[in-house]
Amino acid sequence: MYKVYEIKQRVFESNDREADGLRKELKEKQIFLLNLMSSPGSGKTTTLTKTIQALKEDMKIGVMEADIDSDVDAQTIATLGVKTIQLHTGGMCHLDADMTRQGMEELGVNELDLAILENVGNLVCPAEFDTGAVKNAMILSVPEGDDKPLKYPLMFSICDVVLINKIDVLAYFDFDLEQCKKYIHMRNPKAKVIPICAKTGEGMELWYQWLRDEVSAWKKP
Amino acid sequence: MYKVYEIKQRVFESNDREADGLRKELKEKQIFLLNLMSSPGSGKTTTLTKTIQALKEDMKIGVMEADIDSDVDAQTIATLGVKTIQLHTGGMCHLDADMTRQGMEELGVNELDLAILENVGNLVCPAEFDTGAVKNAMILSVPEGDDKPLKYPLMFSICDVVLINKIDVLAYFDFDLEQCKKYIHMRNPKAKVIPICAKTGEGMELWYQWLRDEVSAWKKP
Repeated sequence: MYKVYEIKQRVFESNDREADGLRKELKEKQIFLLNLMSSPGSGKTTTLTKTIQALKEDMKIGVMEADIDSDVDAQTIATLGVKTIQLHTGGMCHLDADMTRQGMEELGVNELDLAILENVGNLVCPAEFDTGAVKNAMILSVPEGDDKPLKYPLMFSICDVVLINKIDVLAYFDFDLEQCKKYIHMRNPKAKVIPICAKTGEGMELWYQWLRDEVSAWKKP
Repeated sequence: MYKVYEIKQRVFESNDREADGLRKELKEKQIFLLNLMSSPGSGKTTTLTKTIQALKEDMKIGVMEADIDSDVDAQTIATLGVKTIQLHTGGMCHLDADMTRQGMEELGVNELDLAILENVGNLVCPAEFDTGAVKNAMILSVPEGDDKPLKYPLMFSICDVVLINKIDVLAYFDFDLEQCKKYIHMRNPKAKVIPICAKTGEGMELWYQWLRDEVSAWKKP
């Protein structure tokens, strides 16, 4: 498998350059791009729906829904009245910077304050590819277990913010919130950790405020 | 990205040959290899623990724990008194047939009836690589949502059996079991679907029986 590793290394290097280029353009155009990642079924689309409802009066939002197949999530988001596009990865398990750039072009970058990329549901490969996003966010849901930062170290180490979702079912699962925070900070001492329940709205205001602050900071010259 | 696709295609073809070769050897040696896949946190290790406890008196079992990092699962399984080895994938998001063969050699294939590979927690990449296993099993847990067969079609189409885990929390999630079965059968009409709760034991006897039957059938000349 060494040959595959070498090829992968070259793919990574060229992707990193693409990603830096995209970020520079986004800075010039004052568009904040958020890369949202998680396992399948941790609540990305529900969290995104609530976030759009809370912020869409304050800023212009566009959404890129990346999926291997199907457009069920894009259909859901499109009903919220924000521009939404579906990116099919053609079987690929992640988005890279070039695919993200194509998505941004299709979204029409000149009109947006905040673009959100809902990445493919996967804790492994999306962590390896810099999409060009300004910040990385991930969702870990309570039913997945508090040991995930031990098993998927790269994902936790590259995320600026970790939302711990589905805290409404904490009583039914063996999930230690404090232990989980410790594991996350072991991987990434700077990660902001916000426990939420996207369904009930609990904790979501802290997340909205984090996002508002980051968008404002990015728009400053 | 076309170049990457072409490379991937060659990797797949060579992997398929490796996998067929491994399966042939396993048939000669009368060892049944099960490839167990799922999202992170759907309950692979708990299901495996219960399965080993139920079957270890009837057959000789060996376990390969594949992880990107950490050995928390291997430590858990090793306490059950079956031979367990840890496979670190070096950042790779899946196991291929060559890595699986190396694992089988380390396990000591001549003494086993049943070998179980706990694959990396990921619904995307492990589905693309035939490991050489005799059968593929996957776990979908209730908190992940009933729409997963729509979003991760390949995984559901290659699995011989789908365990729907954590049915003890059905009441707290918006998960339609019948709809989920329909989606699974849309992808794979032959898939056996078994609702279980690995924690409480509900439904597990059906799963053990499926596994016993498959191991017996494989051992027939």
